[in-house]
This record gives sequence, structure tokens and C-alpha cells, in this order.
Amino acid sequence: MSVILAENNYGKQAVRLVTVRRRPAAHELQDVTVAIRLQGDYTAAFQEGDNGGVLPTDTMKNTVYALAAEHPFDDVEDLGLRLTGHVLRENPRVTRATVELTEHLWERIENDGTPHPHAFRRAGGEQRTALVVRDRAGEAVRVQAGLQDLVVMKTARSAFAGFPRDRYTTLKETTDRLLATAVRATWWYTVPAVPFGARWHDVRRHLLATFADHDSLSVQQTLYAMGAAVLEGVPDVEEIHLSMPNKHHIPVDLTPFGLENRNEIFVATAEPYGLIEATVRRG
Amino acid sequence: MSVILAENNYGKQAVRLVTVRRRPAAHELQDVTVAIRLQGDYTAAFQEGDNGGVLPTDTMKNTVYALAAEHPFDDVEDLGLRLTGHVLRENPRVTRATVELTEHLWERIENDGTPHPHAFRRAGGEQRTALVVRDRAGEAVRVQAGLQDLVVMKTARSAFAGFPRDRYTTLKETTDRLLATAVRATWWYTVPAVPFGARWHDVRRHLLATFADHDSLSVQQTLYAMGAAVLEGVPDVEEIHLSMPNKHHIPVDLTPFGLENRNEIFVATAEPYGLIEATVRRG
Amino acid sequence: MSVILAENNYGKQAVRLVTVRRRPAAHELQDVTVAIRLQGDYTAAFQEGDNGGVLPTDTMKNTVYALAAEHPFDDVEDLGLRLTGHVLRENPRVTRATVELTEHLWERIENDGTPHPHAFRRAGGEQRTALVVRDRAGEAVRVQAGLQDLVVMKTARSAFAGFPRDRYTTLKETTDRLLATAVRATWWYTVPAVPFGARWHDVRRHLLATFADHDSLSVQQTLYAMGAAVLEGVPDVEEIHLSMPNKHHIPVDLTPFGLENRNEIFVATAEPYGLIEATVRRG
Amino acid sequence: MSVILAENNYGKQAVRLVTVRRRPAAHELQDVTVAIRLQGDYTAAFQEGDNGGVLPTDTMKNTVYALAAEHPFDDVEDLGLRLTGHVLRENPRVTRATVELTEHLWERIENDGTPHPHAFRRAGGEQRTALVVRDRAGEAVRVQAGLQDLVVMKTARSAFAGFPRDRYTTLKETTDRLLATAVRATWWYTVPAVPFGARWHDVRRHLLATFADHDSLSVQQTLYAMGAAVLEGVPDVEEIHLSMPNKHHIPVDLTPFGLENRNEIFVATAEPYGLIEATVRRG
Repeated sequence: MSVILAENNYGKQAVRLVTVRRRPAAHELQDVTVAIRLQGDYTAAFQEGDNGGVLPTDTMKNTVYALAAEHPFDDVEDLGLRLTGHVLRENPRVTRATVELTEHLWERIENDGTPHPHAFRRAGGEQRTALVVRDRAGEAVRVQAGLQDLVVMKTARSAFAGFPRDRYTTLKETTDRLLATAVRATWWYTVPAVPFGARWHDVRRHLLATFADHDSLSVQQTLYAMGAAVLEGVPDVEEIHLSMPNKHHIPVDLTPFGLENRNEIFVATAEPYGLIEATVRRG
Repeated sequence: MSVILAENNYGKQAVRLVTVRRRPAAHELQDVTVAIRLQGDYTAAFQEGDNGGVLPTDTMKNTVYALAAEHPFDDVEDLGLRLTGHVLRENPRVTRATVELTEHLWERIENDGTPHPHAFRRAGGEQRTALVVRDRAGEAVRVQAGLQDLVVMKTARSAFAGFPRDRYTTLKETTDRLLATAVRATWWYTVPAVPFGARWHDVRRHLLATFADHDSLSVQQTLYAMGAAVLEGVPDVEEIHLSMPNKHHIPVDLTPFGLENRNEIFVATAEPYGLIEATVRRG
Repeated sequence: MSVILAENNYGKQAVRLVTVRRRPAAHELQDVTVAIRLQGDYTAAFQEGDNGGVLPTDTMKNTVYALAAEHPFDDVEDLGLRLTGHVLRENPRVTRATVELTEHLWERIENDGTPHPHAFRRAGGEQRTALVVRDRAGEAVRVQAGLQDLVVMKTARSAFAGFPRDRYTTLKETTDRLLATAVRATWWYTVPAVPFGARWHDVRRHLLATFADHDSLSVQQTLYAMGAAVLEGVPDVEEIHLSMPNKHHIPVDLTPFGLENRNEIFVATAEPYGLIEATVRRG
Repeated sequence: MSVILAENNYGKQAVRLVTVRRRPAAHELQDVTVAIRLQGDYTAAFQEGDNGGVLPTDTMKNTVYALAAEHPFDDVEDLGLRLTGHVLRENPRVTRATVELTEHLWERIENDGTPHPHAFRRAGGEQRTALVVRDRAGEAVRVQAGLQDLVVMKTARSAFAGFPRDRYTTLKETTDRLLATAVRATWWYTVPAVPFGARWHDVRRHLLATFADHDSLSVQQTLYAMGAAVLEGVPDVEEIHLSMPNKHHIPVDLTPFGLENRNEIFVATAEPYGLIEATVRRG
């Protein structure tokens, strides 16, 4: 019998990097979790334990800290571009280097409306993400940006009706339900050099505004509208993927207690939940 | 051999309540996790399986939804006061009713600075908490308020030096370290009837301002200063307990790479961590 | 206004210690998370930032590793006894030292029934715990042992009926429900020197056997029976505290689908859940 | 500008199903989390909010319970086969139905070596998984089985040396390190009808035995050996994917305390961690 090594990759996950830039007027803080993943010609490593070309994952971690020190970055995408370039250049066996970056967002603490120069508050569960993929072939590099755990809810203008009914259907139609989700969005830029920070805020603004204002007939339709709004509003975005769990809020039946629920009292449920995912792209 | 029942309690945890109040100008959203705990004369229940006086925890859950529907509340403390009162009144065997409330905070989504009337964004990991304890004896009721997971960091004005050194000491003294923590604070009000919402914001403002501005010689000292500021600034607070994990950020040693770390590059560590806790009260 | 420091403590949490003892026949593995907490005369530290007597939590961490290296231990309680003794002896300002130990359990991998000498499998979510509290006053030391996340279920001989009904009651009586819980038990030994490992297994065996065999009229009654069985069967135990969440499994209503549920199909729910807690002790 | 809908799917996640089969000799317990995902012609749903062909995810949940009641199953793969077949048959718009099954494992509680007929203990964190993918085109169906969170450690016969060194390398070579991981394995069967339960245990046995006995020069090499052993020992397996985080255990430097670490005292670290992944298949 013959056994072969098919797809494989290895790398370092969960490298926690915090940088402080001490400018005269105020400190700037960046808080990022970095993951590096390498693909290449590693058959001898897997089959024979030949570590001759196996860059230790410990060295990958060191490289993150060293390059962050040598090359201060404004956007996490820039750190990813530098890291992938370095790793490909120094390791001939690598054919593809991928760096994932998850930025934990901080806001300045405010005193009577004045932002503090060196005190910060974690902005919440929402995270900014980026993915840089660099191939040796053709020296191609692609940049994806994203956000995750953007938890939103609307209490009006959300319906779900007109769906098929079968032997197992018990769901009632509704024209006025709560719609809540934790948006995960990832989008690819047309080129690997755009003003990353400004574009991220552009995309986020379109996602939020569309979610809020859309007359929703379903999560599917709202998801599509959000993606389409990004493509229409942000020319640098080539395509966008959205993953939106339906965080169900179920009206409590108060009739056993002799009360009426005027669409005001809900139980938030965690399990089970719907999940709707789609990619929207330019035609 | 004789065996006896000592302290005991039972109740319902993790009752998830979301309410929407549909006012003409805008909707209002409250999102709370409620826990109820009863203490009383339950020896027959534990020893003999006599359920005659055992209010089912399922009924406790129903009671949360029913009372929330019948009595809209502005502050979670008010829901706790009503629930404890109801449970004590209806269940003669109960000697103490405790209700814990954890509020998940939402902010309105903004479009160009205008708050949306019915679309919301989860404000982050920080939570507002409350605890209402009502005793049958003397009809006494006490209200505790709190916050948790308020994650903050300061990048200047934090030191730790002058500590004792022994055979196992390797820590270096520092006059300029990062100081990060996830504040958990709980405070008792002098009386169970204060403007709960306004006071909560008062306490939070004092905690944040003191954390930001304090010249910290240790977490202990900063914690005490935060608690003292609350007591000085908010007369309705009788005492405050603070629990502050030291979320260590360790400067990366870049010398092996021929680089100098000018207090700019850190690794954020999750384990192990220091933990400092204290209660500060009026003398 | 006068502000005073009331109860306070500080220490190191989540010190991760793994030891390997390389015996000729087989290796032995211990995997423990240690937490140290000190109480004492720290007013100057909190109020003035005087660190003169503040043993750094980093030193506490080092002390765990050093003492574990110098004094191999069979039971985690022994490590706790040694650590509390060392800390009290070396730090005159400390009046009470508390060490919490959480042991992650491993089993040997078996090949055709033969235990492997140096390969292990994590035994599951269940953990062995211990708590050692040592006071300077009277040189008193107390040892608590425990277990947590012992998840068990019985599919017969569990009922819940005869409970009071009020306006908000919707729960049906049942004579045959699933009973599932995640047992957390902690018990104090009469003296701080018993064969800790053997006793831990004794207690666990009584808990499991009683849970399995008890004719349950309620979680309360089963909890009490489990505690009483421990006190009757293990003379070294002075008292035991049990915390048992009621992990509800709700029969699915299949009638809308034209089917009957013969007590066979359940939905496991995580929220909300009942929680029953009690201490049982010798009379 | 033109915007199009690209890949999309939707479905229900986290459907919690527990079944009890009450046989005369003993009860049998199954505890599964089910996820259903549909792909098909949903452009009108996403673009226009046309729900005419959108099977509600609530109905998917009901279908899980109804089919589990009507057709008791021995292996979770059988439930997946039935569910995918049903959904494709009843919903003309669906082109692919995917069902993911995660089984939570329970063992019988033993009294003096006798397995209890109706009392169970959660077997640990390890889970059995399955994935069934059924396409309308060609009526093709494929079955993947798997396991996850199988946490293992070996304390001998693991090395890592001979790796390249660059400017950022600080890692020391080692011939005797701890090797710990949480195995996640998924494998495709050659045909969708094998004795699923027996095969799952066969694969697991090969994985464990190889991990334990392998003379490891790297995680990569051990991973490959584990996959190859499965392919050699279990002819029904077509290919296997292994994902193995390197759960680092770092020897503590005891020299500052005047002690020697004879490879006995380690700190278990959670972040950062190496991650090695590969697919091994028949050549």
C-alpha cells in the first residue's frame, strides 16, 4: 500500500503582540493576535523527520516581535505584508505564507469629553481582522480585511413570512420580530495597497447603516443588502463574505399568567441558532 | 452517626430576559440575565424529598417574565426589588430571597452622529450588575450595584518597585510598566432607594478617572485610590469592593536580535496573573 | 470624610505546573493549576504605595516551581501544605496564606489493556481540587479537598412532583425524568493529615454510587443523600458542600408531527438552569 | 455596477438531541449536537426576500427530533444519512445538504466493576464527530467521521533538532521534550456504508497507539505516522486529515534558585502554540 502526504501547513498561532508608541501629545496602543501559516515542500519533514528546512514556530513568534519593533505599523495589514514577505524571502522551501491578524480595539478613556493621552478602555467584543496571503509563484499577494463579533439588534422592520410549510413546520409567520446577529465579515481588496484603516471604517459604516435601515424580509435579504451596499460604496472591495448567526429572541407566551405579550417580552436563546452565510461580489 | 443539613440554597440561574419598550420617538431595549436564590426552612425537602414547599425553579423563571411584563422597570435594581418582594410574600418558607441581575449593555447605532430609533449595537464586554437581598426578618432589604469586565490599560505612570527580595525573586523593579486590568466592582448603597442609573454612572466615572490619572506605585495603591474616590464622590455608596486582576504585559527581550526594546514591544500574557482584591468603606 | 481599608487579599492565580517523575518502570505525570492568596497587614501598601512588605506575585509563582522541584509530592494537598508553610514563615506580614490547587487528571494510554509507561490521555473535564488555609494565629491549618465538573446523568428513578402551584406555575409533575448535573463537591477533613489520594477516591466513589442508586424525589433529596453517604462512609470527612446545577433535559413535544414521545427524545438545554447547593455535616 | 450572489448556505446550528432507549437489560443514551446546512438556488431569497423556497431553520430543528423519534439510530452517521436524504427529497431547491454531528460521549457509572444500567458519567472532553454530504447531482453521498479534543501527552521519545537557525532563532535543540496535543482527526470512508461504530474505534486505536509508540523527531513526523497507521490498518478509510496543536510544556529555569531542573518541572503554556495540519491519503 502506498500512502502520500497531501495538503499540509504548519505555523504559530496566538502570538500576542502589544505595541505602544510614545508620541509627545499622546500614546498610541495596538493590540494584535498574530498567526502565521506556511505551506511548501515539506514531504521529507513529515515522512522522515528531516527538520532541515523546518523554520521553528518559535522563530516565527520571535520574528513577529522583531519586525514589529523594527518597522512600526499603522494598520495590521502592513504588519502582515511585511511578515509574509520576510518569511518567503528567508525560507526557500515555502511556497505560500499566510498571516492572520486579529486586532483587539481600545478607545481612549474620556474625562468630561477629553480623550486621555495614555489611558485606554477595551472597546468591546468586536475585533478587526486581516489576512495576508503571499505566494512565491508570480510573487502574488492578496489582502483580506474583516471584522467579527459585531453584535447588533433591530427591534423593528424585520419580518419572516411566506416560507414553505411541511409536516414538521410549527413556526408562526411574523411581520415584526427582533433581528439580532453577530456579524462576521471578510472582504478582499482589489489590490494589496489601499488606505486600510480608512477603508475598514468605510465598510463597517455601510454594514451598520444598512443593517439598521433595511426593511428585512429575512436574514438572507438583509445580509445581501449589507454586502451590496459595501460593494456599491467602497470601490476598493472586490468581494465580501458575510456570516450572520440568527440570535433568536422568542416572545414569551404570557397567556398562562393571564397576561398579553404586546411584542415586548422576549427570551434570548443561544441554542439552537440559524446561520446564514453568503459571498457577494462584483458581477 | 448523626448528619445534619447546614447552609443551603436553591434557585434558577441564567434566566435571559430582553424587553423592548416601543415609545413613539424610539424603542428602548433592556437585556438582562437574572438569577434567583432562595434560603429558608427546607430540611424536609432535603432529608425526605418533601416538595410541599419547594417553589419550582421553573416557576421562578416564569415569575421573572410575568413581573417584567406587568411592571416595566427603568433600572435592573427595580426588577430585583420587585422579584424579591414577590417571592418572600408568596412563599412562607423562604427567609431570604436573593436576586442577581447582569445587564448586557447596548448602544444605539449612529448614522452620521444621529442615534437610530430602533437599531442597536452591543456596547462591549462590560456588564452592569446588581444584587438585591431581602430578608423576612425585619423586612430588611439591601441593594448592591456593580460592574464587571471593564477592561482598562494605562501606558504611563505605573511603577512597581521597593518590594522585598528573597531566594526566589527574579522580578526586576520598574518605574514605567503597562498596567492593565479587568475591573470588577461591587458597592452597597446606604439605602435601597437611590437613583440607581445615575449613581451607577457616577461610580463608573470616578473609577475610570482615578484609574487614568493615578500615579500608580502598585495595583494595590491604585485600587484603593479608586475605591476612595468613589466613597468621596458618591455619598450614597456605603462601601465598595474591587477585584482587579493584573493583566501582565511583559516587555519582549529583543537583545538576541540585536535590537533594543524602548518600552514599546510587549507580550500580553493570560496566565499566570496577579489578583488584588479589597473592600474600602467609610470609617 | 474617613475611608478605611477593610478585607483585602492578593496573590497569584493560574500558575501552571506540570511535573514528570521518571521512574524506571514508568513515568508519573502531575498537572496542576496553583493559586496563592495572602492576607495580612497591608494597609501601608494600599494607602501609601509602600511595597516594603509586598511579596511580588511573580515571586509566588517562582516559589511554586522551586518547591515542587525540591520536594516532589504525591498529592496536591501536600504541595499546598508546603507552600502555605513556606510563605507564612518567610513573610512576617502575612496572617493567612491560602493555596488553591486544581489537578487536571491524566490516564495512561492502553494498548490491548496494557498501560503505557510514558504516554497519557487527558481523563476528561473532571478535576480534583484542594484548598489549604494556614493561619499564623495558633498555627492552624485546614485542608479541603474536592472535585468539580463531574458530569453525570441518570435515565431512571428520578421524579419531581408534589410541589406548590401558584399563578405562574406551568411545570408538569413528573415521575420519570432525566436527572443530569455537573457535581461540584468540596469537603473538609477533620485533620490536615489523612491519606489524601485514597480519601479522594473514597469520597468520589460514594458520590457516584449514591447518585446512581438513589430513588430521587428531587435534586435536593439526592444531593443530601450523596453528602450523607460520604459522611457515613468516610470518617475523615468533617463536612461536605455540594453544588449541583440541574442540567434540564426537556421531552420534545412530538404531537404536532403526529408522533408520540415515549420519554425517549429530549432537548438538552443550557439556559436557564436550576442550581441546588447545600452543606451537610456531622451533627 | 452589478452585484451578484456567489457561494451561499444557510441552516440550523447547535440542535441538541438526547435520546434514551429503554431496553430491558439497560438504558442506552445518545447525546448529539446536530447542524444542518443547505445549498441550492436561493438567489430570489437573498436578492428579493422571496421566502417561497426557504425551509425555515426552525423546521430543520423539528425534523431532527421527528426523524430521531421515528428511526432510532445506532451511529450518528446513520442519523446524518437519513436527515440529508429527507431534506433533499422534500426540498426541490436544495442541491446539497450537509449534516454535521458532534457526539458527546458517556460511559456507564461502575459499582465495583459492574456497569450501571441507567446511570452515566460524561466520558470527558473528547467528542466523536461525523459529516454527511449529499448532492442532488448524481445522488452522491459521502461520509466523514472524526474525533476532536483527544488530549494526549508523551513524556519520552520526543525530540526536535536539526532545524535551520536564522537571526531570530532562540530555540534550543532538544532530544527529550514533552509532546502534548489535542488531536482533531477527520477521515473519509471509501463508501457511505461501513460499520461506523467499529471503524471509529479502529481508527482511534491506531491514532493512540502510534502517538504513544512513535519515536518522534517532530510533530510533523508523528502526525504523518499516525495518519499512515490509520490508512494501513483500516482499509475503509480513504484519507485522513489531522490537526495537532503543539501544546508546549517549557522546562522551568531553576538555576536562579540554585536548583537543577532534571527535565522534571514544566510550565504548561496556552499561548502561543504551534499548529501542524496535514492530510494523508492513499497514493
